[in-house]
Amino acid sequence: MTIPADTVSLFDYERRFHERVDPAIRAYIAGAAADGITLRENRAAFDRIRLMPRALVDMSAASAVSTLFGERLDYPIILAPTAYHKLVHPQGELETVRAASLTNCWMTVSTQASVSLEAIAEASTTKLWFQLYMQLHRNDTLTLIRRAEDAGYKAIVVTIDAPVNGIRNDEQRAGFRLPEGVSAVNLSGFEQRSAAPETVGSPVFKGLLQGAPCWDDIAWLCAQTSLPVLLKSIVNPADVVPALGAGVSGLIVSNHGGRTLDTLPATIDLLPAIVAEVSGRVPVLVDGGIRRGTDIVKAIALGATAVLVGQPVLHALAVGGLAGVAHMLTILQTELEAAMALLGAPRLADLKGTIFERGAMASRMQN
Amino acid sequence: MTIPADTVSLFDYERRFHERVDPAIRAYIAGAAADGITLRENRAAFDRIRLMPRALVDMSAASAVSTLFGERLDYPIILAPTAYHKLVHPQGELETVRAASLTNCWMTVSTQASVSLEAIAEASTTKLWFQLYMQLHRNDTLTLIRRAEDAGYKAIVVTIDAPVNGIRNDEQRAGFRLPEGVSAVNLSGFEQRSAAPETVGSPVFKGLLQGAPCWDDIAWLCAQTSLPVLLKSIVNPADVVPALGAGVSGLIVSNHGGRTLDTLPATIDLLPAIVAEVSGRVPVLVDGGIRRGTDIVKAIALGATAVLVGQPVLHALAVGGLAGVAHMLTILQTELEAAMALLGAPRLADLKGTIFERGAMASRMQN
Amino acid sequence: MTIPADTVSLFDYERRFHERVDPAIRAYIAGAAADGITLRENRAAFDRIRLMPRALVDMSAASAVSTLFGERLDYPIILAPTAYHKLVHPQGELETVRAASLTNCWMTVSTQASVSLEAIAEASTTKLWFQLYMQLHRNDTLTLIRRAEDAGYKAIVVTIDAPVNGIRNDEQRAGFRLPEGVSAVNLSGFEQRSAAPETVGSPVFKGLLQGAPCWDDIAWLCAQTSLPVLLKSIVNPADVVPALGAGVSGLIVSNHGGRTLDTLPATIDLLPAIVAEVSGRVPVLVDGGIRRGTDIVKAIALGATAVLVGQPVLHALAVGGLAGVAHMLTILQTELEAAMALLGAPRLADLKGTIFERGAMASRMQN
Amino acid sequence: MTIPADTVSLFDYERRFHERVDPAIRAYIAGAAADGITLRENRAAFDRIRLMPRALVDMSAASAVSTLFGERLDYPIILAPTAYHKLVHPQGELETVRAASLTNCWMTVSTQASVSLEAIAEASTTKLWFQLYMQLHRNDTLTLIRRAEDAGYKAIVVTIDAPVNGIRNDEQRAGFRLPEGVSAVNLSGFEQRSAAPETVGSPVFKGLLQGAPCWDDIAWLCAQTSLPVLLKSIVNPADVVPALGAGVSGLIVSNHGGRTLDTLPATIDLLPAIVAEVSGRVPVLVDGGIRRGTDIVKAIALGATAVLVGQPVLHALAVGGLAGVAHMLTILQTELEAAMALLGAPRLADLKGTIFERGAMASRMQN
Repeated sequence: MTIPADTVSLFDYERRFHERVDPAIRAYIAGAAADGITLRENRAAFDRIRLMPRALVDMSAASAVSTLFGERLDYPIILAPTAYHKLVHPQGELETVRAASLTNCWMTVSTQASVSLEAIAEASTTKLWFQLYMQLHRNDTLTLIRRAEDAGYKAIVVTIDAPVNGIRNDEQRAGFRLPEGVSAVNLSGFEQRSAAPETVGSPVFKGLLQGAPCWDDIAWLCAQTSLPVLLKSIVNPADVVPALGAGVSGLIVSNHGGRTLDTLPATIDLLPAIVAEVSGRVPVLVDGGIRRGTDIVKAIALGATAVLVGQPVLHALAVGGLAGVAHMLTILQTELEAAMALLGAPRLADLKGTIFERGAMASRMQN
Repeated sequence: MTIPADTVSLFDYERRFHERVDPAIRAYIAGAAADGITLRENRAAFDRIRLMPRALVDMSAASAVSTLFGERLDYPIILAPTAYHKLVHPQGELETVRAASLTNCWMTVSTQASVSLEAIAEASTTKLWFQLYMQLHRNDTLTLIRRAEDAGYKAIVVTIDAPVNGIRNDEQRAGFRLPEGVSAVNLSGFEQRSAAPETVGSPVFKGLLQGAPCWDDIAWLCAQTSLPVLLKSIVNPADVVPALGAGVSGLIVSNHGGRTLDTLPATIDLLPAIVAEVSGRVPVLVDGGIRRGTDIVKAIALGATAVLVGQPVLHALAVGGLAGVAHMLTILQTELEAAMALLGAPRLADLKGTIFERGAMASRMQN
Repeated sequence: MTIPADTVSLFDYERRFHERVDPAIRAYIAGAAADGITLRENRAAFDRIRLMPRALVDMSAASAVSTLFGERLDYPIILAPTAYHKLVHPQGELETVRAASLTNCWMTVSTQASVSLEAIAEASTTKLWFQLYMQLHRNDTLTLIRRAEDAGYKAIVVTIDAPVNGIRNDEQRAGFRLPEGVSAVNLSGFEQRSAAPETVGSPVFKGLLQGAPCWDDIAWLCAQTSLPVLLKSIVNPADVVPALGAGVSGLIVSNHGGRTLDTLPATIDLLPAIVAEVSGRVPVLVDGGIRRGTDIVKAIALGATAVLVGQPVLHALAVGGLAGVAHMLTILQTELEAAMALLGAPRLADLKGTIFERGAMASRMQN
Repeated sequence: MTIPADTVSLFDYERRFHERVDPAIRAYIAGAAADGITLRENRAAFDRIRLMPRALVDMSAASAVSTLFGERLDYPIILAPTAYHKLVHPQGELETVRAASLTNCWMTVSTQASVSLEAIAEASTTKLWFQLYMQLHRNDTLTLIRRAEDAGYKAIVVTIDAPVNGIRNDEQRAGFRLPEGVSAVNLSGFEQRSAAPETVGSPVFKGLLQGAPCWDDIAWLCAQTSLPVLLKSIVNPADVVPALGAGVSGLIVSNHGGRTLDTLPATIDLLPAIVAEVSGRVPVLVDGGIRRGTDIVKAIALGATAVLVGQPVLHALAVGGLAGVAHMLTILQTELEAAMALLGAPRLADLKGTIFERGAMASRMQN
C-alpha cells in the first residue's frame, strides 16, 4: 500500500481511491442519493465563492488554534462520522484513529463503526466524539451513550436526517452488500426497523419510519448525559429554535454529503442563515464537500466554528492506511495555513470579511 | 423481456429503452421538437430547484393520499396520454393498463391508442381518463366522447396545443412511419386535415390548420358531457380565465414534453403563475420531465394537485412489459414517500414551503 | 449533388456543408473573428429566449405577409449579403438568385459577389437589394450605385462595421486564398486601401483605415440616390440619431455574424434598445445566427421588421445548389408558420407579447 | 525552432508551447494554484464582457500611444515579470529583451531572472522595470535596488502577494526541480527563508513566513529610491489607502496569474473598484489572462493605464525565441489597433464607454 509521489491533494486521494477500490464498495462509500445533484453542488458552491485578501498583514504570530467545548482545537478540522472503515482497511477505525491522533485531529466515531467503540478509544490519543443513530428502543440508545461516556468520548453527535435511507441508486446498481467480517459491531443485538411484508407499492410509510426520532426524543437524549450533544444535520434555520429548546450544545449543518435527499442545497449556502439564527448561542459546524484549505477558510468566514471531513478519510485510508490519512490531514492543515497567510488573516477570527461580494464592490464603485 | 437488476430508477429504464428499441421508433417516441431545448429545460428546471426539509417531524401517520374529482387518489401520479403503445409491446395499452391497475395508478388513454378504448377499459381495474383531439367534424368528436362515457371513463382530457405538428426533426431524420398493425384504431373512418396540394412554400397556412379548435369548441365540448373536462396544455396564465369561462373542470400545465414548439419554458417554471391565476377554482396538474420523487414533491409544493408521467411509461413498457411499468410506478411512489419522509412532510399539503428560496434566506440573514 | 433525405433543418445543411467543403473555403465562410465568442453568443442568445403562446386562437386567416418600403414581403426573411458564392457553386450567385426567386424571397447581393450585379438581376424574378462597401474614391462608389439602380435593385445596404478586417484566426490558420476564377468582379479596376510598407509593428493605423467612411459619407450617399439606403451594422443605440440625421431609410442590427470584432453582444440582445431608440421612424432588420422559425418569431416579437439569413444560404448552396437553397428557405418559412400557429399568432404583429419574461410571471404571482 | 505558419494568435503559441516543452517545466510555468479556478476565471471574466462600438468615427489620427511616469508608451502593453527564462530558451532573458526592444515594449525583469540584471539591461534598447521580492535582510534588498538603479532600470515593481508559495499541485505532481544551469543568479548569496525542521503538521506557520514584508517595509523601500515603486499585487480596494500612504507610485492589480491563492476573483472583476478607490492619484495596471487585443481594450476601458503579459512571453519564447516573442507582441499590438478601429475609438481615452452593460440597455428601453 504505497502512496504515489504525485498524491498531493485530497482530489488525488479521491482519484486513486476510485482506481484501487472494489466497485461495489466504491458505490457504497462514494455513491450519492439519486442523481448526485447535491453531492456536486456541495463542491460547486465552494468553488463559486471568491476570496478577498488583505495585503502585507503581520503574520508573525499566526495560528489556526481555537477553542471548542472548552478544549483547545489545533485546527478547525474534525473527522466526520463514516461507517465501516474495515471496508477499505483491515484494521478499520483503529488505523484511522491512529492517524487522527498523530495529527492531533479530533475524530467522530460512527454508530456503524466496524470496530468496537471501546477499542477505538483505547487506540486513541486525540479527542473522540460518538455519533449516534437513535435506536428503535430507548434502552439500546442509552446503552450506547453509557458505553461512549465510559470510554471517554467527549461529545454525542446525534444524526437526525436519515429517518429512512436515501435513494442511493449508485449503491443499488452495484448490488452492494456488507462483506463477511464487516458489520456494525456496536449495534449487535439491537432490534432494527423493518417494513411490513407487503408485495405491492412503496414500503416507506409501511413500517420503515417506525420509531424515527422526534424533538421529544432529542430532549430526552440531552437529559440523559452531561456530554455536549450536537445535532447533525441541520438544514432549515427554522429548526434552530426547537433544537436549542431541546437542549443541544452544538449544530452541524450537513446534507449527509448528498447521500440522503437529492437536490438539497449545498451546505455552504445553508450555513449563513443558520449561523444568523443561532446568533452565537452554540457552535455551528459544517460538513459536505470540504476538500481544500480554502473551503475551510470559507466555512469559517461564514460563521462555522469548525468543519468535518468524511469521504476524504476513507479515500486516504484505502490508499495509504495510517500514513495516507495522516498525510491527507496534514495537506488540509497546510493548505489552511497557506490560505490564511495569503489572505493576511493571522487568526481564524480574521477570516470574517475575506469573502468577496460582487455587490459590495459595485456599490463601492458608485460612491 | 427481462429487467436487469440494476434498473433502479426511471433514468435506467430510459437508458435501456434506448439500448433496446428500434431507432426510428425511439425517434418517434423520444424525439423532441427542433433542437430539444424545451425537452432538456423541463428536466433542468426541476434539477435547479432546491428543497428545504424540516427536522424530526412526527411521520407516524404519513400518507400521500389526496382527492381528485371526488375520488381517492392513492398517489398524485397519473399516466399521461401517449400514442401507440403497440410500438413497443405487442399487447400495447392492454399491458399498460394492467400495470396501472396493479399499482392503483389512474391512466389517461390517448385518442391515438393502438387498442380500442373499450378493450382498454375492460382490462382495467383502475380509473381511466380519455384524452381527446378535437376532430375535423363535431360528430366524430361526439362519437368519441359517447364511447368513452359508455366505457366508464371518468374524465375527458382535451389536448389543445397541437393545432399543427411540431417540427420534429429527430423523427424526420429517422424516417419514422407507423409499422404494419399499429394504427389509431379509435379514429378509424374519421376524416383528417390535409394541406392544399401546392408544390412550393410552407404547407402550414394552406389547410393544415383547418378545423383547429377555438374557445367556442371547448365550450361546446363541455356542454356535451357531464364528465369533467380537463384542458391540456395550458402554458399562458392569460388563458386561465377563458378556460374557466368555457366550463373546464381542470387544467394541465404542459408543453407536450417539448414535442410541439421548441423554446417554450419548462412546465415547472410555468406552474406557479397559473396556480396563482386559478386561485383554487379547479385542480391544476402538470407534466413534462417528471422522473424523480423529488420532482413530484416540487410540483405539489408549487401548487399542482397531481403530476402526469408519459415517456417513462413507454420506456418501462418497452423494457419490461407489465412488470416494467408496475416496477417503474412503484419506484416513483417509493421515491415520493422517501422524499416526504426526508422532508418531514407527512401530508402532501405539508410540501408547501419545502422549496428553498435563496432570496428568503438572504433576507432572513439581514434581520 | 444530392441532398440526403435526413437534411431537415438548417443545422443539417450546416453539418453537411462542413462534411463536403474544402477546409480553407470552410474557414473563410464559417470562420469567426478571434475566439468565436460572438458567433456562438448569437445562437445562445436566441436559445435562451423562451416563448409564451396563447391557446385556441382562430388561425383561419393566418399569414406571415408584411410590407417593406411599400412592397409586399411574403415572409420576413431576406437573404443577407455574402461574398463569392462561386466558392461553393460553379454558377455562384446566379444559382442563389434562382432559388430566392422560386421561394419569393428578397435577396441582398454583395459588393463582393463573384458574378456581375447585372447578370444576377437578369436571372432574378424576386426583389434585389445591393450591398455596398464605400470605395476609396467616391466616383467608384457612385459607379456602383448607378449600376445597381440601372439593373433594377430596390435598395442600397451600406455596410459600415468593417473599416478594417476582423481578426479572423480560423481563416488565417487555414491559409485561405481566393481560388482561380473567383473574384469581386464588380470592383474590377477600383483602387483598394493598403498599409504603409513598414516591417515592424501593427499595420492597422498605418494606412488600412485610409478612406474609411464617416457620417458625412453616409449623408452624401443618401443624397446620391432615390433608393432607400439601409445602414448595416448598427450595434449602439447612440448611433440611431446620427443615422437618421444622415438620411437612411432603414437599419440592420448586425455584428457581421461574429466575423469582425469578437465579444460584441448577440444581435438579438441589441435589438430591443435600438428598436426603442428608432421608435418606429424607419424599419429595423436584424441578422446573426438565425437558424429556426422560432428565431424569426423572437426577432419580430422584439421589434424587427424582418430578418436576414447569410451563412445558411452558402451551406445550402454548397450542399444542394438551387434545390438546396430553395429547400432551406422553405424550411424556414414552414418553421415560421408552424411557430405562429403554435403560438396562436395569426399575424406578425401578434407576435408582440409572445416572449416569456420570468420577472413578469413572478410579479403576476404576487398580485 | 521554426514558428508554424498557423501560429496566428496567443492561444496558438500557448498550444504549441504545450506540445513542445518538457512536462515538468510546463507544469512549473503554466501550472495554477490548487484547482486552477482563478486561472480559468481570469480568462472567463474577460470573455464575459461585451463591447459596444460607435459607428463611422473618424479614425484618421488614431493612435494607441500614452504616457506613463513621464515617458511615452507606444502601446499599453508591458512584459510582466516571469522567472527563469532559461527554462525555455538557452539565451533566457537576453532573448526576451531583444524582442521587447524590437517591438518597443517595456519589460519588467524578475528578481528570479536566470540572467544578471545588468546583462539584460545591456542587451536592451527599451525601458526596463525591476521586479523585487523583499529579501530576508534589508541589506540584500538594498543591494538589488542599487544594482537596478545603476543599470538604468526605470521603476521598481515590488511583489507582495507571495509571503508563502501557493499550493501548486500541478508543479508538485510533475516533480519540478530547477535544471542544472538555471538559477536565480541575482539572488546569489542571499539567505532565504526556511521552515523549522519538524516532522509532523503544516510547515507554513513554523518559519516560512519569517521576514515576510509589512506596510512599514514598503514605506522603507519607497524612501530608499527615487525610482517610482509599483505595488504588485493589489486585490482589495481597502489596501489602496495604505499603499498610497506608504509612498508607492503605481499599483498593479494582479492575482499572480492564479498561481498563489486559488478562488481569488478575476483581476478584471477587481479592477473597477480599485480604480475608483485610487481616483486618479497614481496609475493602475493590471495583469492576468490577457490574450487578446479586446482584453486590453476592456482593461483600459475599466480604468487601467496599461496591461502586463506574462505567460504568453514564455510560450512565444519557447516556440520561437526572439522572433516568437516579437511576433506575439506584434499580434497583440495589431489586435489592439484593430479593436480600436472596429470600436470607433481613435485614442485609448475613447475606450471609456465601450463596455456593453445589459442593465443600461434595459433602462434605456424603458424611457
